[in-house]
Amino acid sequence: MKAVRLHEYERPPTVDEVAEPRITRPWDVIVDIGAAGLCRTDLHIIEGQWSGIQNPQLPYTLGHENAGWVREVGSAVSNVSPGDAVIMHPLTSCGLCPACRIGEDSHCENATFPGVNVDGGMAQQLLTNARAVVKLGPGLEPRNVAALADAGLTAYHAVRKAASALYPGTHTVVVGAGGLGHIGIQSLLAITSAEVTVVDQSEAALELAIELGAHHTVHATSDEFVQRRVLDITSGGAHVLFDFVGENGAELLAPKLLRTRGSHYVIGYGGTVNVPTIDIISREINIVGNLVGTYNDLVELMTLTSQSRMVLHTAEYPLDAALDAIADLQLGRIRGRGILIP
Amino acid sequence: MKAVRLHEYERPPTVDEVAEPRITRPWDVIVDIGAAGLCRTDLHIIEGQWSGIQNPQLPYTLGHENAGWVREVGSAVSNVSPGDAVIMHPLTSCGLCPACRIGEDSHCENATFPGVNVDGGMAQQLLTNARAVVKLGPGLEPRNVAALADAGLTAYHAVRKAASALYPGTHTVVVGAGGLGHIGIQSLLAITSAEVTVVDQSEAALELAIELGAHHTVHATSDEFVQRRVLDITSGGAHVLFDFVGENGAELLAPKLLRTRGSHYVIGYGGTVNVPTIDIISREINIVGNLVGTYNDLVELMTLTSQSRMVLHTAEYPLDAALDAIADLQLGRIRGRGILIP
Amino acid sequence: MKAVRLHEYERPPTVDEVAEPRITRPWDVIVDIGAAGLCRTDLHIIEGQWSGIQNPQLPYTLGHENAGWVREVGSAVSNVSPGDAVIMHPLTSCGLCPACRIGEDSHCENATFPGVNVDGGMAQQLLTNARAVVKLGPGLEPRNVAALADAGLTAYHAVRKAASALYPGTHTVVVGAGGLGHIGIQSLLAITSAEVTVVDQSEAALELAIELGAHHTVHATSDEFVQRRVLDITSGGAHVLFDFVGENGAELLAPKLLRTRGSHYVIGYGGTVNVPTIDIISREINIVGNLVGTYNDLVELMTLTSQSRMVLHTAEYPLDAALDAIADLQLGRIRGRGILIP
Amino acid sequence: MKAVRLHEYERPPTVDEVAEPRITRPWDVIVDIGAAGLCRTDLHIIEGQWSGIQNPQLPYTLGHENAGWVREVGSAVSNVSPGDAVIMHPLTSCGLCPACRIGEDSHCENATFPGVNVDGGMAQQLLTNARAVVKLGPGLEPRNVAALADAGLTAYHAVRKAASALYPGTHTVVVGAGGLGHIGIQSLLAITSAEVTVVDQSEAALELAIELGAHHTVHATSDEFVQRRVLDITSGGAHVLFDFVGENGAELLAPKLLRTRGSHYVIGYGGTVNVPTIDIISREINIVGNLVGTYNDLVELMTLTSQSRMVLHTAEYPLDAALDAIADLQLGRIRGRGILIP
Repeated sequence: MKAVRLHEYERPPTVDEVAEPRITRPWDVIVDIGAAGLCRTDLHIIEGQWSGIQNPQLPYTLGHENAGWVREVGSAVSNVSPGDAVIMHPLTSCGLCPACRIGEDSHCENATFPGVNVDGGMAQQLLTNARAVVKLGPGLEPRNVAALADAGLTAYHAVRKAASALYPGTHTVVVGAGGLGHIGIQSLLAITSAEVTVVDQSEAALELAIELGAHHTVHATSDEFVQRRVLDITSGGAHVLFDFVGENGAELLAPKLLRTRGSHYVIGYGGTVNVPTIDIISREINIVGNLVGTYNDLVELMTLTSQSRMVLHTAEYPLDAALDAIADLQLGRIRGRGILIP
Repeated sequence: MKAVRLHEYERPPTVDEVAEPRITRPWDVIVDIGAAGLCRTDLHIIEGQWSGIQNPQLPYTLGHENAGWVREVGSAVSNVSPGDAVIMHPLTSCGLCPACRIGEDSHCENATFPGVNVDGGMAQQLLTNARAVVKLGPGLEPRNVAALADAGLTAYHAVRKAASALYPGTHTVVVGAGGLGHIGIQSLLAITSAEVTVVDQSEAALELAIELGAHHTVHATSDEFVQRRVLDITSGGAHVLFDFVGENGAELLAPKLLRTRGSHYVIGYGGTVNVPTIDIISREINIVGNLVGTYNDLVELMTLTSQSRMVLHTAEYPLDAALDAIADLQLGRIRGRGILIP
Repeated sequence: MKAVRLHEYERPPTVDEVAEPRITRPWDVIVDIGAAGLCRTDLHIIEGQWSGIQNPQLPYTLGHENAGWVREVGSAVSNVSPGDAVIMHPLTSCGLCPACRIGEDSHCENATFPGVNVDGGMAQQLLTNARAVVKLGPGLEPRNVAALADAGLTAYHAVRKAASALYPGTHTVVVGAGGLGHIGIQSLLAITSAEVTVVDQSEAALELAIELGAHHTVHATSDEFVQRRVLDITSGGAHVLFDFVGENGAELLAPKLLRTRGSHYVIGYGGTVNVPTIDIISREINIVGNLVGTYNDLVELMTLTSQSRMVLHTAEYPLDAALDAIADLQLGRIRGRGILIP
Repeated sequence: MKAVRLHEYERPPTVDEVAEPRITRPWDVIVDIGAAGLCRTDLHIIEGQWSGIQNPQLPYTLGHENAGWVREVGSAVSNVSPGDAVIMHPLTSCGLCPACRIGEDSHCENATFPGVNVDGGMAQQLLTNARAVVKLGPGLEPRNVAALADAGLTAYHAVRKAASALYPGTHTVVVGAGGLGHIGIQSLLAITSAEVTVVDQSEAALELAIELGAHHTVHATSDEFVQRRVLDITSGGAHVLFDFVGENGAELLAPKLLRTRGSHYVIGYGGTVNVPTIDIISREINIVGNLVGTYNDLVELMTLTSQSRMVLHTAEYPLDAALDAIADLQLGRIRGRGILIP
């Protein structure tokens, strides 16, 4: 089968002919890929930024946002059958470790991460497991949901954790209305009652935010302007702020946009949070980390998508054109999320 | 009446003869002071560190940890009567603002803070209000509880917020077993099921921690040693860490002592939290601010004290000897908490 | 001033000329009534059903769903000023008892209940207190919101308690789409992500439910039919069922419409819940009581109303025509909620 | 191997020689039984009360409270190895259904229930699976914990669900201080801060309750006496009441022992809950079902046991004497819990 393989860091991957995966363990599932999302993390992987952390054995197949149809299942798989349309949770969790037992499977101690530390889904087939597959309801197509498997899931997870604090009359601020942010905005509107204010440097991103239903936008021309506008719109600051940027100063501005007892949800990364303890205690504010999402989060996100409450803009490329897609992503030429179709 | 008055910053206060307070508003309550706690914050006030923040009009009476007996009540006060033994919540909250309406009265928008921005309790009488007074149950004496009004309340509040996450099998780490810390340790043992590990530079403080029931102690000889020992004892880090120091490096070490999904509760202050966002998200950790406590927290703390689950070591001074007490505190000559008795 | 007064149980009230209320306590607030909702509870009061429970001293003024404009305030009132448009929480809570201190003011130990145990709002003026008044935001008129003060608040309160359990993919069932039920449906759609199925005997009520956005309806022709249809639509039963009827068999059918671990929220009353303990434990189901709502619930409900997420159908009557309105209500001739306008 | 087999309902089981179990599926685990608890449910099974519900194929092996040492594991088992001391969760859950994915594995859709619907642990060996086994920490012996696997787990589960509502100053009432109740009392003292009042008809049971640390006891001589005493001790009723009886009137008395907003936790069964809806809503009380416990509950219970916070009184019988043990249980001749040792 064809697969987009990384042979060496800082060199473009190549589309190779490789052996098909085989079922060897009872919970193995092989999926015919319908679509694989292309993500900025793929660029970072190629650059070698993750080499010391995840240590995949090169060459290996990229692609960590995958959806398709079940092709073959291991002897103990009872939740899906060949032919089922599925989206894959990023991790193949074990179901036995403490994290799995409480539903926090994104912290599974024994998981693989296809596309990041083992062969991923930019290929005709993917080897995953029974605990990673979410069946798609009627009306959902792999190509329409694949990009939600990781980026969308991460945005939804953060919003879901904050949801019970976002009752009518509360204010939430979204910093960064890009790929993750625009899923975050839709998630906020779908599952919370908060008033949503979106901050971005791009006017186009803010226009999209308004189209999606955001209540207020702030064009980020300077920190001072953002702070003044946000405190004004929110009558004193956000109850919860979602920082989808996490670098270039956004992570430093965020605490200043919170009201007393507010929370800064960190999703984007790159910068360093730096807050005097006197500010943390005198305002009793919180800084909350967020990573991917759980299997249940992905199930819920698919429910919202099937109810048409979640829309994703995509640009499709055939798998053979993977290198073009990667180049377009690097050059900022993709509107929405790039999707590879085998 | 006599009162310990601050006339000028960076000069010692004096014991003056001043007019007794008078009831002027329907919710006013005047209390005959039984005991007033002396606190490191009093030293900071004298040094002028709070002058720009709380702006009391000098001269004014110090004392923000107060207990005594109700002397006189305003026309609308229905919850206490003259003669009742009471401890005072630090703030005289309003009962009308949004924070008060949800039980978060320590963030009341209209409160005074006796001893910090208006006349406090290092005096024979104190003017407070109906929403600040907690009746003491049988067996509790003002002199035995006064020091819990602020320092104890702060420690209890932090533990109380974390309590539902500290079920059997979890690990908590207490950094700093001094005035607040030793109330924190007792609170943890009283209301949670977590295993408690205490870190301190003082062997005497660690001995007290063990006497109070702490399960493990770590002598803080170096950051490396603390990290290695704590990760070992807790099998991978704290579920919740209480940082009662918040400066001198404790605030930087804390995140390294957390397990995945752990929380760093900031209570002490002075330093600056500094964590790369990649660490916050990849480990999905939290940093949680804590300030004083609510009225309900103080009610609960009094319940624990009346059940003998909370012990406070104090050194008593007559009100006339307030300057000696202050000098002893400055020189580290008080074992436990200093208490002024009018 | 004019007031609708009940002189004797089982006799119609009369519109009398009575003395205006006067401010006597520091938190008193006098309101010029803009609108007073007429409620089935008023009929029950007239019939004497509440005489042994609330014991108002006859004659007294009816009206427990009130909105208007502040006319005069007591000496300690700081949250409203004359001229402010306000809606009244049903209870004048004290702000001092344990229930008030945790934000559960609908269980205040010291409250009066105007219109039920003291003079109410079917009059030109009402005596209430500072803790009962919620300021109306721009765009909200007393006549448009008065009927939300009690019936609407009760429905919202129940939904609000259940909200965190009603995430995407869950099913909720509303039994009874009348006065309370149609506020309940709108509340569910506004603050939860659950799929909403409405059960009613009236096809008109079901049509309204669909207009409001309910996802499914079941015409209650027989218990067997309802059970079969609901279990089918919800794939095994409701996660949360809201019983706005509570009598005539609805209270007995409800537990059969729950899935494992589901909850039966009781709001309507009259019947008796009767469930074998073996059913309660083997399915691990819950039965949850609901009463009025808190002050904060009313604030949130006003927020939703000002955001146009809550619509109330009303029929207005001048105060002088109160007896006509009561007769119309008794005869089922009012579409929506009856409102008296002084 | 030897096994206690039920051949026919309403006839005593027999100790037979049967084939040893064999590993056939990847997650299978075979355990050498160290101890099997004998439970009143076993009597009910023999009487045929469960025949229509669980439908085991006769003959089969009794025993649903099992602990021992791992003998052999299937190809996919990674969490235990031969020789490990383990206690068994009652259900062999699947790890794939929605209940399993959120940690509510006691509601697994695909589980077997050894000893109830398939061969159980009153034998030399038991077939279970990887998701049912909890490793015992150092110091825990199968014979000391086996009876916690079901009865103890059920009591702990109920207390665990209520724990966050049982903060300092709250009151809990335990009705029935027998097998489950005395684990419930110990659980309450270990993980909550509530004051514990125990109600029982047996003075010996109440003495044991006091020994275990209960704060108050009420000898249940009449409903009137119990109600008066409980309301007095608790200043108005329980915040949470645990009904370990659930029949013979306990289930009807329980709601009368609650304070406003209190909860009646149903654990014992046999009777029928019967409460007028007006009482449910006017006092805003709850009735909460409880069934077994989750795998995580069992892990926590084992932690408490290893910390010596949970003590179980047992009477041991050799497996060959199973019929004697059953007879003794029927005749009330066992003090504590009966345990069969192969």
